[in-house]
Amino acid sequence: MAISPFNPPVRTLMGPGPSDVHPRILEALSRPTIGHLDPAFVGMMEEVKELLQYAFQTRNPLTLPVSAPGSAGMESCFANLVEPGDKVIVCQNGVFGGRMKENVERCGGQPIMVQDPWGRAVDPQKLEDALQANPDARLVAFVHAETSTGAQSDARTLVELAHKHDCLTIVDAVTSLGGTPVKVDEWGIDAIYSGTQKCLSCIPGLSPVSFSEAAAEKIKGRSHKVQSWFLDMNLVMGYWGGGAKRAYHHTAPVNALYGLHESLVMLQEEGLENAWARHAANHNALKAGLEALGLSFVVPESERLPQLNAVSIPEGVDDAAVRSRLLNEFNLEIGAGLGDLAGKVWRIGLMGHASRAENIVLCIAALEAVLAEMGAPINTGVALGAAQKVLGS
Amino acid sequence: MAISPFNPPVRTLMGPGPSDVHPRILEALSRPTIGHLDPAFVGMMEEVKELLQYAFQTRNPLTLPVSAPGSAGMESCFANLVEPGDKVIVCQNGVFGGRMKENVERCGGQPIMVQDPWGRAVDPQKLEDALQANPDARLVAFVHAETSTGAQSDARTLVELAHKHDCLTIVDAVTSLGGTPVKVDEWGIDAIYSGTQKCLSCIPGLSPVSFSEAAAEKIKGRSHKVQSWFLDMNLVMGYWGGGAKRAYHHTAPVNALYGLHESLVMLQEEGLENAWARHAANHNALKAGLEALGLSFVVPESERLPQLNAVSIPEGVDDAAVRSRLLNEFNLEIGAGLGDLAGKVWRIGLMGHASRAENIVLCIAALEAVLAEMGAPINTGVALGAAQKVLGS
Repeated sequence: MAISPFNPPVRTLMGPGPSDVHPRILEALSRPTIGHLDPAFVGMMEEVKELLQYAFQTRNPLTLPVSAPGSAGMESCFANLVEPGDKVIVCQNGVFGGRMKENVERCGGQPIMVQDPWGRAVDPQKLEDALQANPDARLVAFVHAETSTGAQSDARTLVELAHKHDCLTIVDAVTSLGGTPVKVDEWGIDAIYSGTQKCLSCIPGLSPVSFSEAAAEKIKGRSHKVQSWFLDMNLVMGYWGGGAKRAYHHTAPVNALYGLHESLVMLQEEGLENAWARHAANHNALKAGLEALGLSFVVPESERLPQLNAVSIPEGVDDAAVRSRLLNEFNLEIGAGLGDLAGKVWRIGLMGHASRAENIVLCIAALEAVLAEMGAPINTGVALGAAQKVLGS
Repeated sequence: MAISPFNPPVRTLMGPGPSDVHPRILEALSRPTIGHLDPAFVGMMEEVKELLQYAFQTRNPLTLPVSAPGSAGMESCFANLVEPGDKVIVCQNGVFGGRMKENVERCGGQPIMVQDPWGRAVDPQKLEDALQANPDARLVAFVHAETSTGAQSDARTLVELAHKHDCLTIVDAVTSLGGTPVKVDEWGIDAIYSGTQKCLSCIPGLSPVSFSEAAAEKIKGRSHKVQSWFLDMNLVMGYWGGGAKRAYHHTAPVNALYGLHESLVMLQEEGLENAWARHAANHNALKAGLEALGLSFVVPESERLPQLNAVSIPEGVDDAAVRSRLLNEFNLEIGAGLGDLAGKVWRIGLMGHASRAENIVLCIAALEAVLAEMGAPINTGVALGAAQKVLGS
């Protein structure tokens, strides 16, 4: 056999995630492991909760990182809040709304789908219509920032509509947290999940979640046990919410939590508003460059996420060949399309530590070089200048 | 707010896990993150599978690490193999058999409990009786190495009995993998899960699993969808089993997998048989020391796990005070009792990188110092010599 240690290549990660992980966070991962009930560790957990409350802009006590990736965070929201027979309105405008539907069904709930075109925001009027047509609905679920398309929906308005009809809300903020405003308390979100590997610049593998008092009450008062033992918040609370006297539930992923702690400390140092502003400004520079190249965006400007840029692949261009050359010649990863958009778009992430001037110019220069050499119909010699002009302004 | 970076104390981890993580593995965690669909990463995943097949002693193609801690590995076995209404015989001789029961119930199955005393192996005769009394049972589940007591059961015999009665088997090997023999193919185990934070010397947060062909067939032919989307092996297989053409399921915990890869490379370097021998030899040295101190083991010698030593707390000794002094004065973590054994035993782990001569002498010397100062009824001045004699032999 004789397999050797693995030494990964050094990439620039500008896909839909994982995005570039900051060296401070990589270093934090390698600090000595301690026990998951060690008083020093318990103190760190309290800080992680406090820092996550800041990131989510909430005072919810039930705010913690699920010990698994974002799709487990999604599942923890549905498994805890959906009871068999519950009617759940799911707004779908991309891949992840479809995954929400799967979750509702697997929890024994009944999904009512509200469809919007991929690449557009969720239409509040359609949600309102669905709520009126389904007065017995218990929950509304939607994706704040669709990772598959780069569209951003108006979470505040959608939550308001849901509450007007006495529904709790589940919101996917995997790609938005730390990149664009996410205001859990101000907007009244009841359950929200995110990921660590996007705008938080941390490694993949954890999923921050937060539940409002109303959601926590619903979880405590369920008539059926949560079908997942691992994700049952009634049990997880005993560990994460137990103060000094914590009950063992599962063994926490100690070193991954060191990484998350460090990434949240860095977010606090930069300031949430500054992080949002950085993502917005860098988006404008990338956009100027990509448009100067002749590429066009999938999502209308007013519904666009600054941190995840879906652009149409020019006619006749070999999607996989371009991505492969970017990776092999420039160590640059950009993302393929997903679901209905597979083969039609590239997804270019500017998330967290990847949202930097040097990444923008690398991406534009490398794309221009590869596309020009492949004979694609693009403009040459103008894109870098267009991006630099915005960066310098 | 102003929370500072977290710098953990340097501990010696001799509890029930996490155990000491080898510096090579800590360093591997901090290597640069790459994409979860990067060809370089996909190549590493293939190596992880091959190395896990070696650790499990199996050729099962469906062998992979679940992207979450051991309790999610347990849940992945039950959620994939139990269908609503299935009768599942669960042998319980400690905390984790009870968690298996919870899993069966939450999957809509019907648990038939076979109880053995805590601190003893599972009695094959009781399983045989239960199988005869329940000819419609579909599955048998048991814990190979009970982390709550340190008892080891005869997995080969229990699996043989289950198969004689046409039941598939689910085996918990969280504490045994890499520490004592686990022979999936030779013993005919159908589904097995483990953890990375014990005898593999890796960080907590991943759960290696393996499914036999018969188990994989059952999963593919289910009449109900697996209730967990995140743990559905039909979907996970598309990512881990997809060869060069992998389908996105969830974002893999990239850096944690670097750590697991490194720990499995180290296991390969040492050789599985040598690792088992090291755990056995070091157990003998620790045992000589602890018995010379006057402490007694909970589990009879023939049923004892070498890597997890449960000893009775001497009469009148304050459990928490001793563990707290060991931690504060010697940076040494040993484990408390769990469930029925809480307050009655200490659990001293010698797992993976923690199974070393220096840890044995530290543990004995520190325990002797603290217990003597607290006036506990122990023998002084003889324990270290007793351990050293075995170490030197």
